[in-house]
Amino acid sequence: MKDEFSLIRSITPEKAYHKELIQGIGDDSAIYTPIQNEHQIVCMDTMVEGVHFTEQTMSPFQIGWKALAVNLSDIAAMGGTPDYYLVSIAFPSVWYDRINEIYRGLSDLAKRFNIDLIGGDTVSSDKLTITVTAIGHTFKRKYFLRSQAWPGDVILVTGTLGDSAAGLRILLGELRGNDDEMERTLIKNHQLPFPLIEAGQIMAQMPYHTSLNDISDGLASEANEIAEASGVKLIIDYSSLPKSDELLQLDPKLQKEYSLFGGEDYQLLITAPESAVLEYQQAFKKVGIRLTRIGYVEEGSPSVYLVDGQDKALLSKKGFNHFTD
Amino acid sequence: MKDEFSLIRSITPEKAYHKELIQGIGDDSAIYTPIQNEHQIVCMDTMVEGVHFTEQTMSPFQIGWKALAVNLSDIAAMGGTPDYYLVSIAFPSVWYDRINEIYRGLSDLAKRFNIDLIGGDTVSSDKLTITVTAIGHTFKRKYFLRSQAWPGDVILVTGTLGDSAAGLRILLGELRGNDDEMERTLIKNHQLPFPLIEAGQIMAQMPYHTSLNDISDGLASEANEIAEASGVKLIIDYSSLPKSDELLQLDPKLQKEYSLFGGEDYQLLITAPESAVLEYQQAFKKVGIRLTRIGYVEEGSPSVYLVDGQDKALLSKKGFNHFTD
Repeated sequence: MKDEFSLIRSITPEKAYHKELIQGIGDDSAIYTPIQNEHQIVCMDTMVEGVHFTEQTMSPFQIGWKALAVNLSDIAAMGGTPDYYLVSIAFPSVWYDRINEIYRGLSDLAKRFNIDLIGGDTVSSDKLTITVTAIGHTFKRKYFLRSQAWPGDVILVTGTLGDSAAGLRILLGELRGNDDEMERTLIKNHQLPFPLIEAGQIMAQMPYHTSLNDISDGLASEANEIAEASGVKLIIDYSSLPKSDELLQLDPKLQKEYSLFGGEDYQLLITAPESAVLEYQQAFKKVGIRLTRIGYVEEGSPSVYLVDGQDKALLSKKGFNHFTD
Repeated sequence: MKDEFSLIRSITPEKAYHKELIQGIGDDSAIYTPIQNEHQIVCMDTMVEGVHFTEQTMSPFQIGWKALAVNLSDIAAMGGTPDYYLVSIAFPSVWYDRINEIYRGLSDLAKRFNIDLIGGDTVSSDKLTITVTAIGHTFKRKYFLRSQAWPGDVILVTGTLGDSAAGLRILLGELRGNDDEMERTLIKNHQLPFPLIEAGQIMAQMPYHTSLNDISDGLASEANEIAEASGVKLIIDYSSLPKSDELLQLDPKLQKEYSLFGGEDYQLLITAPESAVLEYQQAFKKVGIRLTRIGYVEEGSPSVYLVDGQDKALLSKKGFNHFTD
């Protein structure tokens, strides 16, 4: 590792947002006092050059931003508030001069949520590999699991679906938009996802039983995870899926593929009782987060069904199983 | 990723050691209730194939064991008790059939300390890269920083120094031992370091001001970190450094190189008041941990001096600066 110490010095924050932080970067471990009477929330996600991004699809700044964003999205999906993060970067020497840009991407997003960088590692490697651990806490011990969906619940989703997948295809030269602005909007959704911490926090302050998943692997995959964890059947109405004006300009087949299986939108998939919907919608509207009802939960063996006009198909994590009747 | 879901199922623990764990593997994040009134301790370390190990130097089991051990050593160096860990493994498909062995190495060590695996990630990569985050807690809010060395303190070290570096050289074919048993002992210290959690816990239960560092980068490097963080001068007597019978069979020049700069011994470097030494030694003896006095702390600009007979040299992180007088 070429000059690891000066790199660590350059990324060490000058001040901490949390007075509960006793020791951040600079010792064997970090130490902090947890928020009293609250649970701790922890997650860890890795992005690898050539697998999750290439120099063609993401700038160093965006790599840093997204590496933290995908973890904050996992905290949001528990209804939590993020407090700290740790970063390990393994990189080849050709990346050395761009590492500070990666840290700038991380810290620009961290600043928006007052999150402190408290540790990590920097090591040599052939391919840039970035792993983030994010740590947060609950609000009044409330949290949301995938296993809390009940028959009679409605299914809701934030934002729009499929934009990130379309943006990636444009970056890879596999898809063209109708104009530059359309391309830029879709690409931005892929490169700079914004974690919906605020949405999770809003729900944590309300009294409803809610199940929650962030959409990292595509709506079909996440809906199946809720169905399996909760032991219920989910019925999704395709015509109700929220799509951006940009996505709606694409071929309908691509719209369907990207909105159901695209992934990396980092929207939240929610099941909640009917009585919660209006309150959620009003609170989300105030902070500019779109919330759309896309289906309902039934009793039945764990499964997800997609209704599209007269067609009803079993939706697996990666595709359809159409019925022959 | 070839069959990520079945891999995750196979590594998900059947039971948790901690009743405070609300949700482990299987949701977006893990959730736990922190130990009441205690601080949280967190660290993160990465090991990369071709940099920290090769197929020649470590088995899959040993890679797993060591990836956790180096993190537990960082918890030990704060005087903490480990509770949870998260693992991210990035690996090429040729490693797929060995991933369970890596997890067996992780979980065999985790079992010894009743630590729960609560999350992580598995992704594709060109080179095996394993990142562990370990989480622990303090005992009665007591913890040890590098900055707590004071003039008049004595310097102590656990175990013996230099064995891991010698073991690595043997594995690389750069060094031969006098016999197989000698080689095996040195190699084991490199492949299966045992984190000194117990030593840190013993010290946390005593009332002394203590600074602590685990020896991952070599005695010289860690001593300099304490000197810098505490703003003191450390004087180390080379003749007092604890060496194994196996290391003592090597050429004296190699003994010196490995014991001062070798690293990866994961012993603890301690500074403590003279009044603590006897009590530490008695308590460590009961649990079979060797503790050796190797020097003392003086007022002075941050630096480390090595006394070797009539010779006194400034010891930098990576070498000597001899005086011309």
